[in-house]
Amino acid sequence: MKKLINQVENVVPEMLEGLVYARKDLKKVPDFNVIARAKKTNKVTLISGGGAGHEPAHAGFVGYGLLDAAVSGEVFTSPTPDQILKAIETVSTKEGTLLVIKNYTGDVMNFEMAAEMAEANGTKVEEVIVADDIAVENSLYTVGRRGVAGTVFVHKIAGSAAEDGKNLSTVKKIAQEVIDNVKTIGMSLGGATIPASGKKSFELAEDEIEMGLGIHGEPGTAKEKLKKASEHVSDMLERLLKEVNLNGEEVAVLVNGLGGTTLMELNIINRDVNMQLEAKGVKIHKSYVGNYMTSLEMPGFSISILKLSKTTKKYLDFKVENSMF
Amino acid sequence: MKKLINQVENVVPEMLEGLVYARKDLKKVPDFNVIARAKKTNKVTLISGGGAGHEPAHAGFVGYGLLDAAVSGEVFTSPTPDQILKAIETVSTKEGTLLVIKNYTGDVMNFEMAAEMAEANGTKVEEVIVADDIAVENSLYTVGRRGVAGTVFVHKIAGSAAEDGKNLSTVKKIAQEVIDNVKTIGMSLGGATIPASGKKSFELAEDEIEMGLGIHGEPGTAKEKLKKASEHVSDMLERLLKEVNLNGEEVAVLVNGLGGTTLMELNIINRDVNMQLEAKGVKIHKSYVGNYMTSLEMPGFSISILKLSKTTKKYLDFKVENSMF
Repeated sequence: MKKLINQVENVVPEMLEGLVYARKDLKKVPDFNVIARAKKTNKVTLISGGGAGHEPAHAGFVGYGLLDAAVSGEVFTSPTPDQILKAIETVSTKEGTLLVIKNYTGDVMNFEMAAEMAEANGTKVEEVIVADDIAVENSLYTVGRRGVAGTVFVHKIAGSAAEDGKNLSTVKKIAQEVIDNVKTIGMSLGGATIPASGKKSFELAEDEIEMGLGIHGEPGTAKEKLKKASEHVSDMLERLLKEVNLNGEEVAVLVNGLGGTTLMELNIINRDVNMQLEAKGVKIHKSYVGNYMTSLEMPGFSISILKLSKTTKKYLDFKVENSMF
Repeated sequence: MKKLINQVENVVPEMLEGLVYARKDLKKVPDFNVIARAKKTNKVTLISGGGAGHEPAHAGFVGYGLLDAAVSGEVFTSPTPDQILKAIETVSTKEGTLLVIKNYTGDVMNFEMAAEMAEANGTKVEEVIVADDIAVENSLYTVGRRGVAGTVFVHKIAGSAAEDGKNLSTVKKIAQEVIDNVKTIGMSLGGATIPASGKKSFELAEDEIEMGLGIHGEPGTAKEKLKKASEHVSDMLERLLKEVNLNGEEVAVLVNGLGGTTLMELNIINRDVNMQLEAKGVKIHKSYVGNYMTSLEMPGFSISILKLSKTTKKYLDFKVENSMF
């Protein structure tokens, strides 16, 4: 395995330590794989997390107007309830805490268990579950649809609503509105290597892609021939628009890199997405391009479309100090 | 070749169009591979550029407190003088323009030719040449040392000084101070595929790295066995610190991904860089981690160390709306 690491067992705590060296507004909770804002707040707090390997998600999205804490499991492995409970204890306030959970069976189970433990200790906790991946129903690790890159819109919009002083039920309602209106589909050009196994998760032929792949390398809907970027974009937008159900509303678009695809390619894809949506009369409020929710160094990308309302647009535009938004 | 593109001949203009769809504060000059701020300014303006394939450099660094325009050649190919001249004409002001050139023979020649043409038209133009790569003296494409990731410190610091209203000779002096005090060394775990050739630039064995590689895949100083991240960091810091010549000054650190290395790994490297520098008594003002100056999807990274003065620190900290700084 050709990776720049020290010990396979330590990749998660060491990367979190490295993140905190670069981000003085964050702290790592000692002995836990939990990143939190360095300064305590009095507002509704937001926590997300899941397996590692999706960086910058989620720890990179802790900060003003976004998350209050992120908890990381091992690579592609749900964090344990005690880790999640520690995150809740670290940032909970009397205003309450919202957990933003990606829909994977292990994540849902462990986040809910932690929420129950926290509630037993008197903390107010609510949850939302993101299930934006339209590629498949039920999958490896998941009952129902998987939670993927659309999750970062939940972080941004619900996080900014919480920063704006909204109460827990309102923040939860806004988070749920984002979840109900964001749809994602991804495709991959090849596998990635999980440090603990040391082997590529799967291989594709030189002219082959997998449409609808999950962010842990879970199977998609079909293996296809590699086509022009604009042709893949066209296929993906057709599936997305059927699900988004637009009626003149503005949208936000996220072209998310899975880790191994150049920004050159992601920007070409963003061009094709914007041109094709414009040709269909879709009004694009803003496009985001980059590695937001990766799958280690997997080559590939996903497109997310979020149908905006007045409220979600306001909080998407709420000023934060993270130029990814 | 497995890339998400439309036509090999169009990768550069299409990626620049895609960038502008995501960044409403920028515009692409029609028929030229030039990105400029959408709004004209009255201050000293900064232009950089070079071959494509290093994204987000340089077009991604156009914006408030940074560059005013960036000009892109084909992949790993210097932009032509007429393209550079167009960039100058697009953003020049009566305060004058500074060209920030990475030291490659073609870049230096073409930027200087464009500067002469602009001066003949009455525009005030000055240049600085970045040569921060300590790995080798003279190389493929280059007489002297190569200009690599340290260039982004020039963009940030000289760009912020220009935004602060400094005149051309002061902005040039500050840019030159950064250049004199920033040193970089990189290593690679493998090649990358240039779209026009469709083939990987070079191959390394599964346990092999190349130390001192350039950002176009130019040879480095030695092929070595892949070691622990902390061990490579130790070797690289030893070479860097000999060149930086610290005498109690603070430094800024950039851990720059070459495109194909996960943020997980870059953060582990940042941890090792910070811990080892701290152990040597080096005072780190700030660390930056991410893909700033890539080599397409090459796996690998570079470390840059910038020795700070009161002036360069002030403009490094000057507030811009780009969280990469």
